[in-house]
Amino acid sequence: MEIRGNMMIGGQPISGQRGPIHAHAAATGEALSPAFGCATPDDVDRACSLAALAFDPYRRLSDERRAQFLDAIAWEIASLGTALTERAHLETALPLARLEGERIRTVNQLRLFASVVRDGRWHGAVIDTAQPERAPSPRPDLRLQRIGIGPVAVFGASNFPLAFSIAGGDTASALAAGCPVVVKAHPAHLGTSELVARAVTKAAQDTGMPAGVFSMILGEGTWIGEALAKHPAIQAIGFTGSRQGGRALTNIAQSRPAPIPVYAEMSSINPVVLLPAALAARGESIARDYVDSLTLGAGQFCTNPGIVFGIAGAALDAFCADAADAISAKIAATMLTPAIHAAYRRGVEQLAATSGVTQIASGLDAAGPYDAVPILLRADADDFLANAALEQEVFGPSSLIVACRDHAQLEAVLNHIEGQLTATVQIDDDDHAQARELLPLLERKAGRILFNGFPTGVEVAHAMVHGGPFPATSDGRSTSVGATAIERFLRPVCYQDAPDSLLPAALRADNPRSIWRLVDGDLTRE
Amino acid sequence: MEIRGNMMIGGQPISGQRGPIHAHAAATGEALSPAFGCATPDDVDRACSLAALAFDPYRRLSDERRAQFLDAIAWEIASLGTALTERAHLETALPLARLEGERIRTVNQLRLFASVVRDGRWHGAVIDTAQPERAPSPRPDLRLQRIGIGPVAVFGASNFPLAFSIAGGDTASALAAGCPVVVKAHPAHLGTSELVARAVTKAAQDTGMPAGVFSMILGEGTWIGEALAKHPAIQAIGFTGSRQGGRALTNIAQSRPAPIPVYAEMSSINPVVLLPAALAARGESIARDYVDSLTLGAGQFCTNPGIVFGIAGAALDAFCADAADAISAKIAATMLTPAIHAAYRRGVEQLAATSGVTQIASGLDAAGPYDAVPILLRADADDFLANAALEQEVFGPSSLIVACRDHAQLEAVLNHIEGQLTATVQIDDDDHAQARELLPLLERKAGRILFNGFPTGVEVAHAMVHGGPFPATSDGRSTSVGATAIERFLRPVCYQDAPDSLLPAALRADNPRSIWRLVDGDLTRE
Repeated sequence: MEIRGNMMIGGQPISGQRGPIHAHAAATGEALSPAFGCATPDDVDRACSLAALAFDPYRRLSDERRAQFLDAIAWEIASLGTALTERAHLETALPLARLEGERIRTVNQLRLFASVVRDGRWHGAVIDTAQPERAPSPRPDLRLQRIGIGPVAVFGASNFPLAFSIAGGDTASALAAGCPVVVKAHPAHLGTSELVARAVTKAAQDTGMPAGVFSMILGEGTWIGEALAKHPAIQAIGFTGSRQGGRALTNIAQSRPAPIPVYAEMSSINPVVLLPAALAARGESIARDYVDSLTLGAGQFCTNPGIVFGIAGAALDAFCADAADAISAKIAATMLTPAIHAAYRRGVEQLAATSGVTQIASGLDAAGPYDAVPILLRADADDFLANAALEQEVFGPSSLIVACRDHAQLEAVLNHIEGQLTATVQIDDDDHAQARELLPLLERKAGRILFNGFPTGVEVAHAMVHGGPFPATSDGRSTSVGATAIERFLRPVCYQDAPDSLLPAALRADNPRSIWRLVDGDLTRE
Repeated sequence: MEIRGNMMIGGQPISGQRGPIHAHAAATGEALSPAFGCATPDDVDRACSLAALAFDPYRRLSDERRAQFLDAIAWEIASLGTALTERAHLETALPLARLEGERIRTVNQLRLFASVVRDGRWHGAVIDTAQPERAPSPRPDLRLQRIGIGPVAVFGASNFPLAFSIAGGDTASALAAGCPVVVKAHPAHLGTSELVARAVTKAAQDTGMPAGVFSMILGEGTWIGEALAKHPAIQAIGFTGSRQGGRALTNIAQSRPAPIPVYAEMSSINPVVLLPAALAARGESIARDYVDSLTLGAGQFCTNPGIVFGIAGAALDAFCADAADAISAKIAATMLTPAIHAAYRRGVEQLAATSGVTQIASGLDAAGPYDAVPILLRADADDFLANAALEQEVFGPSSLIVACRDHAQLEAVLNHIEGQLTATVQIDDDDHAQARELLPLLERKAGRILFNGFPTGVEVAHAMVHGGPFPATSDGRSTSVGATAIERFLRPVCYQDAPDSLLPAALRADNPRSIWRLVDGDLTRE
């Protein structure tokens, strides 16, 4: 497949009449060919209207047909070969090996959702059989299933050009739920986006999907996101990006004549708590692993460990020294875009200039113009509590170590922080009692709680939660990674006294799909 | 138990220092004793702060302990005897038999949620076991469960003084989810509210619940609802009432520093579609059942059939005549409050004055000052499509029959209407093909689709959906009636590589509760 500077709308490559805009080489800032034509308002409207037209036919396909579509997308993305990862490398400066790993994750994610669709539990089928003899009034026959919520607008992330972009987690879970998808491509990887959009389009055509099931549009500025979020056909939004961007979309979605849900994954500093026995026993190895996690992918992960809490004392001082040693040997790595690099430098400068904050180490000097130098800072909990700015996410390889006076102050800072994607505790056996005490607090603050690991590296699995209370996400009841991400795009419908022949397959008396259902209160596949 | 004019805050009867306000006899408007003292802002803060304090201890109780609490509430409400229904009758004018039925429903609803908690599927337990040998990187052990979202504010409904008020569906499902509850009592049934709040408080004390698990506060005006919705301790809102009230709460919740979900059940006209064969075969009996459903409880149900769509012609004319006959014999019934009665009269007058609308029949004259006379109106679909006002809910026993030119126009009006709690189709065998064609459209519009029944009478069951797309509710992904209502107040948490001894019971290796769990992709109770 070739990159031609196109959008893909309802199965057709479209050369947008606005713009043109260019992709850029992340390492140098140089413009790449070809030029990309951007969407007009009419293009946005067409993509959304085609999605609305496709909704009923698409969601009423058999589970097997939809699973085949997801599998076909996976196959097409795998088939793009090195052309995909090389272009992504050029556009994002992420290492080729990482991008190959991300492609595998993307492909596996699509296949996971194909298996979720085939499994059939996603229907959430519940049946209460009629009780015609019940007094004083008979009980009707009631059957519940979940259906797709409607066309979904997806805003891809800059930092996962494959796994959280055109055919990433939001798209895969929405398509699995029976929802057509309109993706706005992230301008940081336009060529990668076109390649993947062509792969999705080919898969849709090869498996006979309705034309509007997938579109990818391009555009600059905020108007295009607004137009997409306001379009009456769009019934939900998936977004990964900044807190500002997520809040803007949420506000637009809420002020529509009929508001719609927004799943925005926004901002997290992913606290790591060092408990005393663990710190004493293996502070040095924790420090090394922490710095590895912090600097991975130039720190450009939503789950980057941006803050560490420990109890002040010799062990924490030693930890700081070990972490400083480790970070001093870390090379600077190129960031995704010049704008992200500039924001990182600004963010680190502001942190370092904040009262009570000391820079304790930095990595090796930058080689390229958009390389991020890893930075380690330290502050006391009193300063942290007094200054809300220290809690802001700085996207990139910087982290702040916060020294607490005692365990009570550690609890105070954990109570003080906002909602998080993750919270990590480093514990040894002797820390269990303290960990047990902190656990309720951590559960209230984070979507995922890690023990003796580091939060980067989000497994795509049934049990994963990549979500958390605001501002980690706009909707803490959900996850954007893992099998249960499909639930974001479903809503329940109950059929009362429906003739069996009019019921959807998931609810028919003979259970033709042999799926798990709750029948009169009992789970069964009968 | 006695009515003393009290609130119940954190287990204590409190005589509010604001007000006082009075309950009123619905039939006469006469003020009832005793006077009720209302909350100060400090009272609201105390109730919410106690709820926050109670959250961790309450949610970490065993499932069995929480189930016992719900059972105890059911028992205490049953034990209130005729004092409860007589007071509710005085305050609401709802017939005693209906109120006794509503009490049974309320008690059964609490017991259903006790059984849901005991069953353990509510945890949504998912386990992906570690794969330490996986290449290139080992898979961690991941375990997901759902926990309560936090303290919930509940705003009771005027029209269900028991089943959707102090200890109604929102309260029962929130308590089941492990969330403390602060209820603002509806001013239309203050004495009933105090009796039930005392019953809940006694149950909490008898079963050893934390003091802040339940509070009931009283107040007039909008400030108290605002204060409750804005309080940082409150993490979700359950509301049943007007569209205006629901939108106001949603806006407050969204503009909090950390927004919270609102489950507002607001507005529905519950379309009934008459398909040709059914209309021809049994128009007369459909007309009779329709008028019975419409006038039940003075039409004061969220699922009242406020609109009927049929194809113009002799059969529809005959249906209108039959319905007119039936309604002419219906007596006027007292409405819940003078304000609701005034709004009904205003709403019906506006409908009748709308261009193209004809009043085709009314019920018997009102006897009491706040009695609602049932009204039947008719319009053509052209007028309906041209005038958005005809789609507004008029709370009470009025309904509009809309004549469509043909099947295409019937589809057009169904496409045109907003989201609904219910949609009903009257079908005979010969209508199946047409019903099958309409079904995708009805699924997109409503939370519950009924065949050959009428929407009033909402069964409390596992498979019930009492929800629907906006403006039926503020969140079409949810139901406020039935077992799955618990899902509104849960959020997922994932534990990564947690030592077994630190895991919650639902996720431990030995599955001590023998609950259903998804382990490595398979449902099992092992």
